[in-house]
Amino acid sequence: MKSKGIKSKAVQNEAPHEGQGLSRFAPYLINRIAHRYNQSLQDAVTELGLTIPKMRVLAALAAMGKLSVNELTVVAVAEQSTMSRTLDQMERDGLINRMKSQADSRMRVVQLTQSGLMAYREVWPQMSEAEDALFVGLSKDQRDGFLDTLSQILLNIRKHDF
Amino acid sequence: MKSKGIKSKAVQNEAPHEGQGLSRFAPYLINRIAHRYNQSLQDAVTELGLTIPKMRVLAALAAMGKLSVNELTVVAVAEQSTMSRTLDQMERDGLINRMKSQADSRMRVVQLTQSGLMAYREVWPQMSEAEDALFVGLSKDQRDGFLDTLSQILLNIRKHDF
Repeated sequence: MKSKGIKSKAVQNEAPHEGQGLSRFAPYLINRIAHRYNQSLQDAVTELGLTIPKMRVLAALAAMGKLSVNELTVVAVAEQSTMSRTLDQMERDGLINRMKSQADSRMRVVQLTQSGLMAYREVWPQMSEAEDALFVGLSKDQRDGFLDTLSQILLNIRKHDF
Repeated sequence: MKSKGIKSKAVQNEAPHEGQGLSRFAPYLINRIAHRYNQSLQDAVTELGLTIPKMRVLAALAAMGKLSVNELTVVAVAEQSTMSRTLDQMERDGLINRMKSQADSRMRVVQLTQSGLMAYREVWPQMSEAEDALFVGLSKDQRDGFLDTLSQILLNIRKHDF
């Protein structure tokens, strides 16, 4: 830690959660759930010859149609270097192709090939099973309300308009 | 992709979300929110001479008391190699120390030093601000219900009993 020292008396006072656990701290719960969901899919996607980033690209393109590389990086929650490498491999494997955007010929967009769409349909049951595992014991209303809140939160904090 | 070919007719059929976006797919929303929350704290923790893993270790130990390295790795959502490096640096910087567990002398546990506790109190306002940014426009009831659902989901899918 840079030796900035303690700047104010405020930090002498107890902060929330001290000695209380983190079970009411939303970001803690969200990070643990995200990590566990991804881990739970790891074996299944490896078995299909995929990776988590490739699975996300398949799902994003199947759900949203053509996307630019920047859009894909945001939507598939990847680092740019990871996305670039992932797309190279997926193109080589015939799962996607890249083409000039019809809207703006200076821009290139990525789209699924037929084989990529088949790969999405093959991996989807694994994604769906891992999703259902989250919601065991919750009612349809709770699940719907939870999705509504998640949507609102993403709207609150996202930096892009998608 | 390994050339396993298409195994069944099932994949010829359309799968959920095709052409529909992912706005009702919970893991997509959760992953994007987790990533954006972490990104939003990046600058603030760097300014304090911390990293996201170090911030998580401070919060976990402040909230939960002494933890083993394995527990910390799960709770702070880190890879083991990252956690190991992070703890070495934090010990060097006087934020944590490691000691024999009183319950089991073969086990070592990690605890915050006084300086580590001060560092948690210094970074907490940033964490709190980033948390509040999630919930803009949501009522207290919605926020509480959301936390209840997150807790249930973590119970559903966690691999450890903590």
